[in-house]
Amino acid sequence: MLKSEQVVHNIAVLIENGTLQSHTKLPSLRAYAQQTGFSVVTIFSAYQRLEALGLVYAKEKSGFFVAAQASMAKQTDVQAVEVTSKVQVNSRVFQYLKALTQYTHASLGSAFPDPDVLGNSRLMNTIARNAKYRKSYYSGDAMPPGNATLRQFIAHKYTLQGIPTQADDIVITSGALDALNLSLQVLTTPGDYILLQSTVFYGAWQLAEKFGLKVITFPSDHEINLDAFEAALKKYPIKVCWLMLNSHNPIGFTVSQTVKAKIAQLLATYQVYLVEDDVYQELYFGLEKPLPVQYYDQDQWVLHCSSFSKVLGAGARIGWVRAGQFSDKIQHQQLMSSLSVNPMLQYALAEFTATLHYEKHLRQIRSQLAKRKQSFYQNIKAILPESCHIFYYSSGYFLWIELPKHIDSTALYETLLMHDIVITPSILFQKHTAKQSHFRVNCSYEWNDRYSQIFEFISKIIKEWNSVS
Amino acid sequence: MLKSEQVVHNIAVLIENGTLQSHTKLPSLRAYAQQTGFSVVTIFSAYQRLEALGLVYAKEKSGFFVAAQASMAKQTDVQAVEVTSKVQVNSRVFQYLKALTQYTHASLGSAFPDPDVLGNSRLMNTIARNAKYRKSYYSGDAMPPGNATLRQFIAHKYTLQGIPTQADDIVITSGALDALNLSLQVLTTPGDYILLQSTVFYGAWQLAEKFGLKVITFPSDHEINLDAFEAALKKYPIKVCWLMLNSHNPIGFTVSQTVKAKIAQLLATYQVYLVEDDVYQELYFGLEKPLPVQYYDQDQWVLHCSSFSKVLGAGARIGWVRAGQFSDKIQHQQLMSSLSVNPMLQYALAEFTATLHYEKHLRQIRSQLAKRKQSFYQNIKAILPESCHIFYYSSGYFLWIELPKHIDSTALYETLLMHDIVITPSILFQKHTAKQSHFRVNCSYEWNDRYSQIFEFISKIIKEWNSVS
Repeated sequence: MLKSEQVVHNIAVLIENGTLQSHTKLPSLRAYAQQTGFSVVTIFSAYQRLEALGLVYAKEKSGFFVAAQASMAKQTDVQAVEVTSKVQVNSRVFQYLKALTQYTHASLGSAFPDPDVLGNSRLMNTIARNAKYRKSYYSGDAMPPGNATLRQFIAHKYTLQGIPTQADDIVITSGALDALNLSLQVLTTPGDYILLQSTVFYGAWQLAEKFGLKVITFPSDHEINLDAFEAALKKYPIKVCWLMLNSHNPIGFTVSQTVKAKIAQLLATYQVYLVEDDVYQELYFGLEKPLPVQYYDQDQWVLHCSSFSKVLGAGARIGWVRAGQFSDKIQHQQLMSSLSVNPMLQYALAEFTATLHYEKHLRQIRSQLAKRKQSFYQNIKAILPESCHIFYYSSGYFLWIELPKHIDSTALYETLLMHDIVITPSILFQKHTAKQSHFRVNCSYEWNDRYSQIFEFISKIIKEWNSVS
Repeated sequence: MLKSEQVVHNIAVLIENGTLQSHTKLPSLRAYAQQTGFSVVTIFSAYQRLEALGLVYAKEKSGFFVAAQASMAKQTDVQAVEVTSKVQVNSRVFQYLKALTQYTHASLGSAFPDPDVLGNSRLMNTIARNAKYRKSYYSGDAMPPGNATLRQFIAHKYTLQGIPTQADDIVITSGALDALNLSLQVLTTPGDYILLQSTVFYGAWQLAEKFGLKVITFPSDHEINLDAFEAALKKYPIKVCWLMLNSHNPIGFTVSQTVKAKIAQLLATYQVYLVEDDVYQELYFGLEKPLPVQYYDQDQWVLHCSSFSKVLGAGARIGWVRAGQFSDKIQHQQLMSSLSVNPMLQYALAEFTATLHYEKHLRQIRSQLAKRKQSFYQNIKAILPESCHIFYYSSGYFLWIELPKHIDSTALYETLLMHDIVITPSILFQKHTAKQSHFRVNCSYEWNDRYSQIFEFISKIIKEWNSVS
């Protein structure tokens, strides 16, 4: 181990076990060098690394201080999170995604809606016709920014919502994850700060780790805490926010228009970019599609990401980012990774979305998902003990279930795995040090006896564990 | 600008304009600090950054020295290249790829074979049948490592070649570029050294820049210079080599089995990984598919990447990496980027490759490409002045043309663009500081009068420029 790494390790341990409390000043470079026998340069290099890890912060002319730690009991409004510690979440996500493909009762844990609800025979016929008609699926559309007709259609939908958009603002991507990935990559450099909701789609944690970003979170479990949001923007040199405000994954809430307008205002004030994850935008149960923050964005601080995966099937792998001024940079990055999106599917999708069948399809899945979610909610509520709280929001296809205190949702997840059942524990969406008492349930499937049995079983486990604790 | 960045900038300028020659010792930290009035810590931080940029190197207990620079006239066998300078190549690649979609006569410049040659109506019918038969294209195959039957088929092809392979060794990717991207990502961390051939597929330069890698090149224009290869492995702490040894892009040569066996031996001796780019493996003109280095690799130092794009069309976006022990890590990375590959296309491809039609298709395209390449070679040779040298190798569909001395292929490329013609200049494949006198021609299309006119025109330009210089 290098000398400076040794210093990093020693101090990290002291911070983690609580010997060094938040905001404690670290010894001066000179003092610590004398104490350890290492050079000042070694100590400085170690302190810099600790800063990069988010474990300490520097104050102009005063030295280095221990950062507010996630592991500490004290709850602060704005928390700094050590990004490197997320490696654990990363492998956990991997195991969870593998479980979804290997276990028998995986539908509750799945992130995708029931394929039977999303399946559309007209689209499949369009693909079939395109495949037969074309001798080959190669075409110029194989290159970014993607099929012009499809981009025109997507731009038109934005414009109809009051967000004037040109086809050239849109870049077609390999699903929304690719869009989010590319956006974050273009807007940040390693070491930058990004701001996340305290509970957030695990992809955000993974990408933060991948790109070497420092993560700040703010509490936003069932609404956006605007004060905490602004406090974070004020306190940290945040480069990018990543927010999900419509039909939030995993919790399910949709943020009000007033709050979104205020967020847009704060972005402009603090000159911070927003990567807006809006993959569930079409799955509202009300009369109108909720607006994104982008609607209120005058100065192009927002990159809005969405996809067809949640309305036409995950296998489509066709998403997009409304990249605007960043279109060229996004395409640059694309040319260095997956290159492009299958042009035949883009073409078929362009043909299908141009018909009225697409809007009809959306109306149908909305109504079907609303019914199924309602049915899941009523059934689960009747089965689970009253000590469980079920968060029901009228959009999407997730329910967010809070277990009684002292019951750990990760333990429940692992116990159920042994019985071939997959749920989605909150540990995947939060700092792994936080108390884990929630899990997500996919309720896009038709309720049946199997689900009754599974929830009776969950109920039994909860009661047993409750009586033990 | 931070103080340390100011120091970085000042020294970088002195190195680039030649004031500071290679292997010159930089002033000591203390001396330079006194000279500039900055702190020792600032200077140290700047020197470290210069080292990360590949501009200087540190010697134990002796200080910092200027690295061997690519911009220097002196030709050495092994050259260190400043990766950051490749930003320029990156935008150039972008402009070139854009030109391919926008200009009228782009086929000469295209990297992909004529879609009419690759098109296969049986495959398209299989896709059509799958689309019609399935209500939805979502299925479990949407998750890495991809369709089991397709992976089984790919593994079987390796095994037949004498490379024992299991389906679990294979990860399906979004084309070969994605496979190369994921492999490099898994094997390196920013700041690592990688070794490239001096002329190489531009994707390698781009990915090196993207991942913050230091690039070392060794001369290998028409064969592998094993002495230079070993010298590089000896001199630099190379983590990964990226080599293309079959039907090299852009030059076209295929390396002998003896050399490949020796490369495998050197990898094991120096404990260096190889990312083997073998996308043209099926496009040999001889009797047998040339072996990859992987064949000689006993200790799993090789990640072999290929795809269906060059035999079934670029739009497929289905490639793979024979990841072996790295399968899990590759899948990890995949789950953080494009997630997966369209499962319906994977399924259709699995069905198609299981028939005899796939091998027949390969035989047909090989014979057709051989004829077309031969025809291009004869025609071009008859038209271009004798001062041009055309490199003809019996595989693939590229010709590599060397212009007379004093004629710059980048200037030719730009002149032709003004006449709506795209060729591929060598600047895209080499350090931008190298002398540019080559260009690549795609000869997978049927020779016709239009090509005659274009080459007559090129010939005229060369003669004019030759008489001026």
